[in-house]
Amino acid sequence: MSEAHGYAARSPESGLAPINFERRDLRADDVAIEIDYCGVCHTDIHFVQNDWGGTIYPVVPGHEIVGRVTAVGSSVSNFQPGDRVGVGCMVDSCRECSACEQGLEQYCQEGPVVTYNGHDRHDGSVTFGGYSDSIVVSDRFVVRVPDQLDMAQAAPLLCAGITTYSPLRHYGVKPGHKVGVVGMGGLGHMGIKFAKALGAEVTMFTRSESKAGEARRQGADHVVISTDEDQMANAAGTLDFILDTVPVQHDLNPYLQALTYDGTHILVGLLEPVDPPLQAGALVTQRRVLAGSLIGGMPETQEVLDFCAEHGVTCDIEMLDINNINDAYERVKRGDVKYRFVIDMATLKSTAT
Amino acid sequence: MSEAHGYAARSPESGLAPINFERRDLRADDVAIEIDYCGVCHTDIHFVQNDWGGTIYPVVPGHEIVGRVTAVGSSVSNFQPGDRVGVGCMVDSCRECSACEQGLEQYCQEGPVVTYNGHDRHDGSVTFGGYSDSIVVSDRFVVRVPDQLDMAQAAPLLCAGITTYSPLRHYGVKPGHKVGVVGMGGLGHMGIKFAKALGAEVTMFTRSESKAGEARRQGADHVVISTDEDQMANAAGTLDFILDTVPVQHDLNPYLQALTYDGTHILVGLLEPVDPPLQAGALVTQRRVLAGSLIGGMPETQEVLDFCAEHGVTCDIEMLDINNINDAYERVKRGDVKYRFVIDMATLKSTAT
Repeated sequence: MSEAHGYAARSPESGLAPINFERRDLRADDVAIEIDYCGVCHTDIHFVQNDWGGTIYPVVPGHEIVGRVTAVGSSVSNFQPGDRVGVGCMVDSCRECSACEQGLEQYCQEGPVVTYNGHDRHDGSVTFGGYSDSIVVSDRFVVRVPDQLDMAQAAPLLCAGITTYSPLRHYGVKPGHKVGVVGMGGLGHMGIKFAKALGAEVTMFTRSESKAGEARRQGADHVVISTDEDQMANAAGTLDFILDTVPVQHDLNPYLQALTYDGTHILVGLLEPVDPPLQAGALVTQRRVLAGSLIGGMPETQEVLDFCAEHGVTCDIEMLDINNINDAYERVKRGDVKYRFVIDMATLKSTAT
Repeated sequence: MSEAHGYAARSPESGLAPINFERRDLRADDVAIEIDYCGVCHTDIHFVQNDWGGTIYPVVPGHEIVGRVTAVGSSVSNFQPGDRVGVGCMVDSCRECSACEQGLEQYCQEGPVVTYNGHDRHDGSVTFGGYSDSIVVSDRFVVRVPDQLDMAQAAPLLCAGITTYSPLRHYGVKPGHKVGVVGMGGLGHMGIKFAKALGAEVTMFTRSESKAGEARRQGADHVVISTDEDQMANAAGTLDFILDTVPVQHDLNPYLQALTYDGTHILVGLLEPVDPPLQAGALVTQRRVLAGSLIGGMPETQEVLDFCAEHGVTCDIEMLDINNINDAYERVKRGDVKYRFVIDMATLKSTAT
């Protein structure tokens, strides 16, 4: 065991505060990582606040983790100390089901072990995430950060990046395709970048004219103000795919109408339940598809980092001192960040208790 | 012009009664058909009753039409008098959009001309369907009935058949796949037969134990009583596809849970809107898909007839004297038919006014 320093919430109301805890001794397949940066995902806030129930306190959030290898277990051959690596939303899975065999660990039929607030499959201990100076993770769930990528900008690729990249790849987005993106946040702005990098013509849907310029700056070819009925009517039947990154309830029906026949509307956020209710006729009469997608498997998580290195895709970030994490959460809740906070973990080391 | 005899409703309450009307003179690409049999689709009843609004009276229903060619226009080379032919739900489309170019006339971006209650693209006249002794249709929308098929049993393939065959083919159902079928009516029983003929293992979902034996007789390998929570829990995560033929509102959420990751739930009926509301998490967390499908294009409508001839697939029918059509409608509404009424058009000739 070794002592680790991190930031944790001890109750839904407590906010995040310094914490000391212990990291497990290295198993044969483990990689020990000193964390340089960790992105702030809205999911972190939901867990800290226990919005979805089931939060186990203290909770150390963070699943957009990049750092350097400090030690490896006896059977690890792919990594060595000094390697630039990343850890995303999962740290283990059953490794035997058909999903795991296909490298789709996120759909593991026993459920993947999530990076924080999960239960280790060996000793049942609760997993702690990346708001910490270190983490120990089985090598299968560690990816390599290409040298071309800035470490801090790479961090959000482990969740916001892979979540938007995976469905675009799964559905084969390529030049000639017309892709709509809904939601101009951490995920949405990555969605624009990936769709463009894959060669698609991109339409950004936004509720406010004020975001139109920003959408174009991110690479959108067209902007549709979704509250403008005329603009939505003009968009009808034009898109092959819509990547919908909005994580709260919203009306899917106007977006379905924007798809051409055989078009696919991809949800990556939860909106439980769908309300206003879905008009299924929009699917039936034009063979449209409503699909979902969850992060990505480990091979594809490596792929997205390599893709970003090759295509020069990065996440727009705002660097954060971990001492300001509670203020940052309030800003995330207001949508006041372009587009992802990334914690500089050096600020933890300087304040660790 | 030539006089035709048929059965039509003149108001929502009038029921169907004999009618005389005129058929257009043959255009260059027209095929004139003497109708032998016409299937009774629930859609016919909705139009007769004006359930969806927009019915133009008098309405001559019927879009599961088989008969023999009696004459062809000057440019028709594929058909000649005496040929056994069929006409389904469409009689024209724009023929120029990308959907039409792909032989997906049902998704024509100008809207296909439906077999009855549609508007002819040339003269604007209202189309009349198959409850008639004859019909004149452009050759692109006429299919050939293989010699191996019984004409009466072939009629429902033009709607009930193609509607269930098309999505199973589109999604590539093949040996090794596990397919669920929901709804044990005209479409559902065809769904079982097609899924089996394509080599899949078939699970029939039905609300009542009483239909279990019948489902097995139709070829289902397994039967799940959908009102039994234990049976539904046991089915969770097992199916690659669900073909959902139920045309009224029902809870999709338990069926989505029966799909494995990457599984696809296919709607072929309208259930406006989806209620109880959809739990989108079932899609996101396992990359599942909710899809829709509408009849099939003309090449695939020919394909389904050829497939049925090759695989010995037929629709279970009950032969109907057209004089009993109003009683038959009442029985269809009660679900009291196994599984499709087919009108013997000889009974029209004997009663024509």
